[in-house]
Amino acid sequence: MKKQIKVGLVGVTGYTGMELARLCLAHPNFTLTAATSRAEAGKKLSEIYPFLQKTKLQDLIISEPNPKELAKTCELVFLAVPHGAAMNVAAELLDQGLKVVDLSADFRLRDVSTFESWYNTPHAQQSWLKKAVYGLPELYAEEIAKAQLIANPGCYPTASILALYPALKNKLIKDQGIIIDAKSGTSGAGRKATVGTLFCEVSDSFRAYNIGGKHRHTPEIEQELSLANNSQITLSFNPHLLPLNRGILNTIYTELNTKSSAKELHEVYSKFYEKHSFVRVLPLGSLPELRFVRGTMFCDLALTVDERTKRLILVSCIDNLCRGASGQAIANANLMLGLELETGLNLAPLVP
Amino acid sequence: MKKQIKVGLVGVTGYTGMELARLCLAHPNFTLTAATSRAEAGKKLSEIYPFLQKTKLQDLIISEPNPKELAKTCELVFLAVPHGAAMNVAAELLDQGLKVVDLSADFRLRDVSTFESWYNTPHAQQSWLKKAVYGLPELYAEEIAKAQLIANPGCYPTASILALYPALKNKLIKDQGIIIDAKSGTSGAGRKATVGTLFCEVSDSFRAYNIGGKHRHTPEIEQELSLANNSQITLSFNPHLLPLNRGILNTIYTELNTKSSAKELHEVYSKFYEKHSFVRVLPLGSLPELRFVRGTMFCDLALTVDERTKRLILVSCIDNLCRGASGQAIANANLMLGLELETGLNLAPLVP
Amino acid sequence: MKKQIKVGLVGVTGYTGMELARLCLAHPNFTLTAATSRAEAGKKLSEIYPFLQKTKLQDLIISEPNPKELAKTCELVFLAVPHGAAMNVAAELLDQGLKVVDLSADFRLRDVSTFESWYNTPHAQQSWLKKAVYGLPELYAEEIAKAQLIANPGCYPTASILALYPALKNKLIKDQGIIIDAKSGTSGAGRKATVGTLFCEVSDSFRAYNIGGKHRHTPEIEQELSLANNSQITLSFNPHLLPLNRGILNTIYTELNTKSSAKELHEVYSKFYEKHSFVRVLPLGSLPELRFVRGTMFCDLALTVDERTKRLILVSCIDNLCRGASGQAIANANLMLGLELETGLNLAPLVP
Amino acid sequence: MKKQIKVGLVGVTGYTGMELARLCLAHPNFTLTAATSRAEAGKKLSEIYPFLQKTKLQDLIISEPNPKELAKTCELVFLAVPHGAAMNVAAELLDQGLKVVDLSADFRLRDVSTFESWYNTPHAQQSWLKKAVYGLPELYAEEIAKAQLIANPGCYPTASILALYPALKNKLIKDQGIIIDAKSGTSGAGRKATVGTLFCEVSDSFRAYNIGGKHRHTPEIEQELSLANNSQITLSFNPHLLPLNRGILNTIYTELNTKSSAKELHEVYSKFYEKHSFVRVLPLGSLPELRFVRGTMFCDLALTVDERTKRLILVSCIDNLCRGASGQAIANANLMLGLELETGLNLAPLVP
Repeated sequence: MKKQIKVGLVGVTGYTGMELARLCLAHPNFTLTAATSRAEAGKKLSEIYPFLQKTKLQDLIISEPNPKELAKTCELVFLAVPHGAAMNVAAELLDQGLKVVDLSADFRLRDVSTFESWYNTPHAQQSWLKKAVYGLPELYAEEIAKAQLIANPGCYPTASILALYPALKNKLIKDQGIIIDAKSGTSGAGRKATVGTLFCEVSDSFRAYNIGGKHRHTPEIEQELSLANNSQITLSFNPHLLPLNRGILNTIYTELNTKSSAKELHEVYSKFYEKHSFVRVLPLGSLPELRFVRGTMFCDLALTVDERTKRLILVSCIDNLCRGASGQAIANANLMLGLELETGLNLAPLVP
Repeated sequence: MKKQIKVGLVGVTGYTGMELARLCLAHPNFTLTAATSRAEAGKKLSEIYPFLQKTKLQDLIISEPNPKELAKTCELVFLAVPHGAAMNVAAELLDQGLKVVDLSADFRLRDVSTFESWYNTPHAQQSWLKKAVYGLPELYAEEIAKAQLIANPGCYPTASILALYPALKNKLIKDQGIIIDAKSGTSGAGRKATVGTLFCEVSDSFRAYNIGGKHRHTPEIEQELSLANNSQITLSFNPHLLPLNRGILNTIYTELNTKSSAKELHEVYSKFYEKHSFVRVLPLGSLPELRFVRGTMFCDLALTVDERTKRLILVSCIDNLCRGASGQAIANANLMLGLELETGLNLAPLVP
Repeated sequence: MKKQIKVGLVGVTGYTGMELARLCLAHPNFTLTAATSRAEAGKKLSEIYPFLQKTKLQDLIISEPNPKELAKTCELVFLAVPHGAAMNVAAELLDQGLKVVDLSADFRLRDVSTFESWYNTPHAQQSWLKKAVYGLPELYAEEIAKAQLIANPGCYPTASILALYPALKNKLIKDQGIIIDAKSGTSGAGRKATVGTLFCEVSDSFRAYNIGGKHRHTPEIEQELSLANNSQITLSFNPHLLPLNRGILNTIYTELNTKSSAKELHEVYSKFYEKHSFVRVLPLGSLPELRFVRGTMFCDLALTVDERTKRLILVSCIDNLCRGASGQAIANANLMLGLELETGLNLAPLVP
Repeated sequence: MKKQIKVGLVGVTGYTGMELARLCLAHPNFTLTAATSRAEAGKKLSEIYPFLQKTKLQDLIISEPNPKELAKTCELVFLAVPHGAAMNVAAELLDQGLKVVDLSADFRLRDVSTFESWYNTPHAQQSWLKKAVYGLPELYAEEIAKAQLIANPGCYPTASILALYPALKNKLIKDQGIIIDAKSGTSGAGRKATVGTLFCEVSDSFRAYNIGGKHRHTPEIEQELSLANNSQITLSFNPHLLPLNRGILNTIYTELNTKSSAKELHEVYSKFYEKHSFVRVLPLGSLPELRFVRGTMFCDLALTVDERTKRLILVSCIDNLCRGASGQAIANANLMLGLELETGLNLAPLVP
């Protein structure tokens, strides 16, 4: 058996918590030693998640989220609690010397006022915010390895930034006029009981929501792409709800800066992601499908040039729960703890 | 019992044929007297469609598609056969004096060379093409009423043109740079057995296809919108495949010409469609959902202004089989036969 | 326009309320003049159900459930409120002279103690219970026509009783050892927000629930079948949850009494339901499919003899919201008001 | 890196082939060195399965199925070709000294005449049939470890036998009158393009098929259970098609032999499967859900006593592609090659 590192999970009852449990089971070096939930404290993990019976997690007792206790039993904590609440819990854990991967949005926006205006709440942990690293491994692997606090990226931003980064970094496309038409599976809406996410309201249907500059992932995408292009990017981000559990597919419309051929653009992207094992630039003519990334860390990318309208159309897709949340959290933890990025994450998709 | 008009259906075995059968059953004035299929000729309709047992269509015998026979038993024929094949069958029926609503693409494009280059086939019935009327009732009700041959619009064009027409007609948006991000249910792919449309390949998945100026509905949309705006419009049309049976939802990105407020734009649209019973302009702030048009003739429309990027985002949705094909064919037939447009089509959606 | 009868709907916010609204729209003689909901009173019906915009119901104002007011504006009321609450509301409406079709279980069980033990609540309206008629039109059309109060059957009982009635009435099968393996779409679970009926918990899954004699529809099925067979029938009813919106399919296992051939049994069934337009006995060798009854009043029935184990296996299927609830309520109302049973209910299924 | 064993896959294009590829990727000791398909020979595996890009299988060249070549490159071959064709391919491979796990039905039935009457084809490899071992590891682990040829069990039989075996072995239930009401996801129907398995024909629907003693898995189930009970068991097996990709759930109706309490029965089952890591006997009161076994080797089992009808109702569920086919094949290969049964198969379900 390989070297074991003790990790904890604060907030085990949502879909990202479930997914973290699944991924910890597949990880050769992580032992989940604590899982917390105020509502379920005292129960075995397999009581609330019957699918964990006869796994090594079955008898883990869910505990109250107590930072001091966590510091005794863990080296690193995954934080899967709602925006707003996360920042203070994170600070308490960090103050105990723990490493923290925060899956909420609380430490993603580098600019306090941007955070406060989009999330409509004051930021109570600004000194920690300054030390937080944005946990997109393809862009920030070195910084992540040294960080104590990781702001784990949002699901839509992960699929958006990975798609646009090489084009903007290399000034291949105009920095204005970018449109992201995003489609997400329903697990992105979380596990809270609401009429709008009931089976009978989502099944056989499809709809847009929060379009026209209202979705909170907008500033996160703009922040990272503005840094890539060294200019202030304002784009139009427009999400939709798919009648399926997992997956995000973004269709992204951009204007070409130069008369680059599809082949040249494809070469730039292929080279950019050549060494990155989780990003697959598909052959020209191929297009991603959600099912081919389900349950995995892959971000599948395709480039299409619309000759009639001089546009570069990018299609990217990820599993929102794995690559877009919990899997990426594990990847960040791997780097923070000195392991290979891919440890425990060489997952093939469940097809069909 | 109301006055009965005898109608026929050439090509009963696909999803549009099924839907025409359903709608004829609900129609107070149409009697389906002929349904043809070379493959199934001789069988009762309820043998191939068990769901028609104990309906007035159960004992209709499927026949070979013989124009002379059809002329004896029908006044109007719905033509639901593939592109390319339809034009000659239509001509034979028209030559017999029958009225024809053609659900294929063969008579939709007014310009022969555009048709031939996009459909990669010569047009063998150019004189009938000149007489064909594009069957979008909101735009061409008068011409439809006098026509012998209707080119029934494509599903994507119906949802696209209805969304963009008022804005372009009134020069509210720029005529270039329009992007249509379209999502369709799987019935749009037809009823042919292919691996790509098997349940296990479509379910739990989502993908783009034919993006970047490749889909044949592009010139159809451009034709009607160019006429509306009196300019040559070139737009980017990009379809996707949804894991559900019925429905198309288009998210359409445009640039505002003037500094119109959302309220002003909404008023233009509301007024434009005020008298049109099948188009519903939703209140500002509401967005369409596929389930709310399922099984109906409604086209639901919403307008959103993205203030950050100065765009008008339009969302439109229809049932691709009803409004986008067979229901629209019935509506056209109503007008051609002197009935009210809505006859037999006041259908409420099946929710949930 | 045909003669209009004013009807009301108490409890408009659930799935059966939605379905009643849809069916009233399609009905040539019913005008929905009142729809009540304490939570939504004061709103237009199209505000809570956007799919009713541009229909004749769009401007109906939702009201408080006031029996005296209802008596002024309606002749008959559909009652779609929860079990336990319905009985007293029904009594108030009945006392005002209104006809009532109660969709709850409160008046379905003829024996008070059976009701009280299965529903765990005292029956407060026993005198009305004695006058209630069980609203299964194939069995009780004459009594329904004379009734003031109809106990609209449960969804599972409708599909179960119609399947077993002819065999038990004619003593073709043993009255003991009957097993009903029932599968229902998720709309049967209602529209309350619960984690268990969220899209992500139901989609891609399937499960049994309340098996082994625990489901409350058991005594209702046994009551009607015991009457049919003139013996006390105890059977095993076992429901399951399907990842789809609408539909119930029952597979029913019975033991043959006599050495009847499949052909003979089929003849008995065909003859029994010959004049009943909503029950379709499929040809031998065919089996029902949920999609073929969706949105309709049909109960599709098939008979299979398992020669190896001497069993008659019956398969029945219905749309749980239409035939199993709201459509059957309309059918009962038709009879109570002197209309043809089928009025407004000649609905073809939405396929696909 | 652990010791690597070379394995081959004959027939890579179906869903079981896909699943074997997925599972080989997760296996620490197996290297897939050959994958054959006449139709796709010459292509890279990642050309036909884009989801294998950037995995260690991406560059494997699909080859023609040549036994001599396979003998050079593999130690064991998984055979995923259709019934009837498999037996002769198996014999050729076995004659080369290869170990073979055959996923078809060709070697499952011990009695030649039973095979020939149910499969309607002569058995051409009767001497190999005598040597074949039925590959259900919970029953035959020792024999499997010594075998050269494994008949990998059918999906429905796996879920049925595991559920009934302890009860019949211990004579707790009657050996006659057993009814299996089985429900399977659509991947069980294979990857051949047929109208009946198109998305639009399966989605939103549910149906029974081959009921009443017609399904070919019947004799396989009866064979193993008859051995367990040491009597000739004839049962009624009745399959249904679920609108989801993966999973089988069986509801099984039996008559109790003795007046055993639920608690006593549960203890027998718990003890029987205590040491078997892939079978989970759920706590009394819990019922299995398909989603909790998706992608895994688990067979989840529940026992319910219907006190009103003196029945033991068993519910069992598995993933038909993993436990019901390819995963079980890997488990058998593990035993044949001297590895731990669970090697590479400690998979947690993908939830949601």
